Amino acid sequence: MDELDLKILQMLENDGSLSFTEIARRLRLNESTVRKRVLALKEKGVIKKFTIVVDHEKIGFSTLAVVGIDATPDKLLEIAQKLAELPETKYVATSTGDHMIMTEIWARDGRELSRILSEKIGAIEGVKKICPAIILEKIK
Amino acid sequence: MDELDLKILQMLENDGSLSFTEIARRLRLNESTVRKRVLALKEKGVIKKFTIVVDHEKIGFSTLAVVGIDATPDKLLEIAQKLAELPETKYVATSTGDHMIMTEIWARDGRELSRILSEKIGAIEGVKKICPAIILEKIK
Amino acid sequence: MDELDLKILQMLENDGSLSFTEIARRLRLNESTVRKRVLALKEKGVIKKFTIVVDHEKIGFSTLAVVGIDATPDKLLEIAQKLAELPETKYVATSTGDHMIMTEIWARDGRELSRILSEKIGAIEGVKKICPAIILEKIK
Amino acid sequence: MDELDLKILQMLENDGSLSFTEIARRLRLNESTVRKRVLALKEKGVIKKFTIVVDHEKIGFSTLAVVGIDATPDKLLEIAQKLAELPETKYVATSTGDHMIMTEIWARDGRELSRILSEKIGAIEGVKKICPAIILEKIK
Amino acid sequence: MDELDLKILQMLENDGSLSFTEIARRLRLNESTVRKRVLALKEKGVIKKFTIVVDHEKIGFSTLAVVGIDATPDKLLEIAQKLAELPETKYVATSTGDHMIMTEIWARDGRELSRILSEKIGAIEGVKKICPAIILEKIK
Amino acid sequence: MDELDLKILQMLENDGSLSFTEIARRLRLNESTVRKRVLALKEKGVIKKFTIVVDHEKIGFSTLAVVGIDATPDKLLEIAQKLAELPETKYVATSTGDHMIMTEIWARDGRELSRILSEKIGAIEGVKKICPAIILEKIK
Amino acid sequence: MDELDLKILQMLENDGSLSFTEIARRLRLNESTVRKRVLALKEKGVIKKFTIVVDHEKIGFSTLAVVGIDATPDKLLEIAQKLAELPETKYVATSTGDHMIMTEIWARDGRELSRILSEKIGAIEGVKKICPAIILEKIK
Amino acid sequence: MDELDLKILQMLENDGSLSFTEIARRLRLNESTVRKRVLALKEKGVIKKFTIVVDHEKIGFSTLAVVGIDATPDKLLEIAQKLAELPETKYVATSTGDHMIMTEIWARDGRELSRILSEKIGAIEGVKKICPAIILEKIK
Repeated sequence: MDELDLKILQMLENDGSLSFTEIARRLRLNESTVRKRVLALKEKGVIKKFTIVVDHEKIGFSTLAVVGIDATPDKLLEIAQKLAELPETKYVATSTGDHMIMTEIWARDGRELSRILSEKIGAIEGVKKICPAIILEKIK
Repeated sequence: MDELDLKILQMLENDGSLSFTEIARRLRLNESTVRKRVLALKEKGVIKKFTIVVDHEKIGFSTLAVVGIDATPDKLLEIAQKLAELPETKYVATSTGDHMIMTEIWARDGRELSRILSEKIGAIEGVKKICPAIILEKIK
Repeated sequence: MDELDLKILQMLENDGSLSFTEIARRLRLNESTVRKRVLALKEKGVIKKFTIVVDHEKIGFSTLAVVGIDATPDKLLEIAQKLAELPETKYVATSTGDHMIMTEIWARDGRELSRILSEKIGAIEGVKKICPAIILEKIK
Repeated sequence: MDELDLKILQMLENDGSLSFTEIARRLRLNESTVRKRVLALKEKGVIKKFTIVVDHEKIGFSTLAVVGIDATPDKLLEIAQKLAELPETKYVATSTGDHMIMTEIWARDGRELSRILSEKIGAIEGVKKICPAIILEKIK
Repeated sequence: MDELDLKILQMLENDGSLSFTEIARRLRLNESTVRKRVLALKEKGVIKKFTIVVDHEKIGFSTLAVVGIDATPDKLLEIAQKLAELPETKYVATSTGDHMIMTEIWARDGRELSRILSEKIGAIEGVKKICPAIILEKIK
Repeated sequence: MDELDLKILQMLENDGSLSFTEIARRLRLNESTVRKRVLALKEKGVIKKFTIVVDHEKIGFSTLAVVGIDATPDKLLEIAQKLAELPETKYVATSTGDHMIMTEIWARDGRELSRILSEKIGAIEGVKKICPAIILEKIK
Repeated sequence: MDELDLKILQMLENDGSLSFTEIARRLRLNESTVRKRVLALKEKGVIKKFTIVVDHEKIGFSTLAVVGIDATPDKLLEIAQKLAELPETKYVATSTGDHMIMTEIWARDGRELSRILSEKIGAIEGVKKICPAIILEKIK
Repeated sequence: MDELDLKILQMLENDGSLSFTEIARRLRLNESTVRKRVLALKEKGVIKKFTIVVDHEKIGFSTLAVVGIDATPDKLLEIAQKLAELPETKYVATSTGDHMIMTEIWARDGRELSRILSEKIGAIEGVKKICPAIILEKIK
């Protein structure tokens, strides 16, 4: 990992659709150098994934929640794994703080969120308490 | 927004580096249809950004924190804006729950995190309390 | 829903006993227009109910509580439904925040509230914790 | 206050548009008795108000919040009073529990709620912390 | 209950060992009036008990705790009753706030308090969580 | 302090109006021994006060609250002192737990409690937050 | 315990490897006096242990956590005992405050900490909730 | 750092007064090897300090507290530094969790602790809230 790698990563974070040619032009390198480095970053797992950021409201999800979950302690990792498998979760992590599992959920409205929390997440064995916080506005 | 758009979005979320040709092949469409739709999704702002997901540990950031911030109520939006401008924040949102602002911060270790919290975030006028929770493991 | 509808709704919120004639007079419309609009608002469910606001102390209820309820997650909606059936609850909602169910209860005094919480609400299967906050004074 | 008064109150809570004739018919009284009693209940302040319950979503308010407010203790009642004057608050009370003031706010979406909280409520002198909980679904 | 009764009560709260003669002298009444009133106050239950306030440290209890108790909701009153029967509790009440039962406990030191909490209070069926706060200094 | 002293103390806690003669009779001592010991216990400050327990509801105080108070840390003891001087406080202590000062307040109703909290306690310089919990029922 | 004992204790807290000769020299005593006193302090249990303070990061433990543990109340002391037997705990105490057991844990990274919390601590019968706080920087 | 170093560290943690000869004997090494390694461990800072563990009760400190401190965010590190300079603090760290600074304090009784918290810690500029938890019993 050198300075050049970091610059390439930053460029791709800002625009993951940049072509090798374009990155090469901006960094005054030749394309094959860029290509090799990006492939190496992918192989080493530094770049875990190319992806897109979708506007949740424009595809009909107006209610986003960051949900803290209290789990039976000895099932912590198993529950985190099951949450990761639900299509409704966008993000799952174990953390310190008020709750040991945090997840982000997208729902069409409050009614749908209630149902996901109760019928999908609440139905996982070992989930004891669910504490949703609604995202009012994403600034970054 | 129809079924086809949603399928294309899902494909690109899973792999943002897919070529139009590849998407077309998988959905049994011709390339120009895919191209037009993706461009339309970008123009309408449904796709906000192409980006990459970086493995934080592999680039030297071993301490990730979700930080809840208590702000002087009448400076809420101003403070959220200033947080978004800091390079150390990966994410900024206003939310309900224990704190009205939530942000994600990447630091090299606990010592660096202490300094970012105190000297960068604590220095923003109107920030009253900072409650960091450390991410132990990202599962999704 | 136009401006006129909103004006009629606001008038009826302030005084639900206004006659069509009176509303018509104030808005300089003829009575049949008002009648048609109010009936339409009821039919479309915009007006859910005509009701009265009762002074709780004057009918002997001196202890009002907003009660947060922690429920077994997979019984959330079932418990909310059972709470709604109790005559002692004036209001039941699922919510984010410290507790996923919130309800308002009217009791004659603290002793009666204790008994309602323990014997009526605590007896519902799946209710795990009850957190009452007493309303000291209703200002609006 | 006797049994009959309580029955009339309950009838009007369920349907505030019932005519005196209809109430009289159901309770097997003559109309003038009902009329006198209802007027007395209004005069004594037992009935504080005739009103309607509006479906918030059908008039465009999709984000409802119960907001706990921490206030400078010696301005508690003054702040509660100012909150009651805002058109955005549907309900204001002082209470025990986590926060000494509770209010209910209706907004069109999360963005509007953020703005009301910061620019309207946060701007009241003496308001120190604002803790919104979103109502997911009203059951009763 | 008149002004005179209230004055007598206040005098006895300050010094419960005052003789009827002394109270009579201070209030410029004759002794039999005082005697009759005090007896009446006891009979009506206004005076629940004559008692003494003991200095806990001087009799060897150096660790006092106000203990909040979370109970299985439907056993709330039963548990409060059992707590009242323990000699270690000086006070038991149901309350709103963070915990629905509050009790005060006197122990010789932290080790003894741990044991009372775990073996006496924790052993009551339905007690789920025990939250002790230590009294550092009694001012009044 | 011996066994006999403890027995006398316990008797007086249960009934502070017992005469020396009666205590002597029950413990099979002569009256002068009891008299000497009680006086010694008072002199050494073991007995801090003879007092009465009054039924709060029977003298018109229907709203009792245990109030946690957050104070500017360097004014902690000064504020506790000022609270002890208010006639409305029945009890004041510094403690660990959620709040560093705890006090018990008796009020006629919720409205009066609001006013005491805001105008009496909130007016003490350095008081930052007031968290009242209502006592629903005193069991012991 | 006199002044001299306290001085010796303080010296040894600062540097536990000081020889008796060196302590004697600094305090202008003869060596045999120091030797006798230190042995006496050990025998009486005033000095519980000579030990070293290790730099956790230099031996590969980059994630330190203070962990609050909620336990089934009647198993409190048993659980504390089992925690003390785990090699991963550096410290175990019962305490007041948010959690009745507190322990300090050293782990190589967040992933290892997650596993210790879930598989070692969570597996102890009666452990109901685990609340880790990460130590960012030890200052003293 | 190899296996041998770790074994020596563990021995010295258990008994910091072990002579090089004794360590050598137990590990079947010669003394000069042990001496060199211990000196190297000290030089590299792996061993930060030789010290003793004192029984707090036997030297008159019966009240130990773990104290969480809320600080003005931009003075966090400065305040932690000042706390470290107080002789009453045994331990100071910045942390995540409910409070950003944690410290351990030894006092002779609750009254002394109140005074240390208010007059020593509360007097540091920028300290906003102090939350002490009392250690009931140290198990490890």
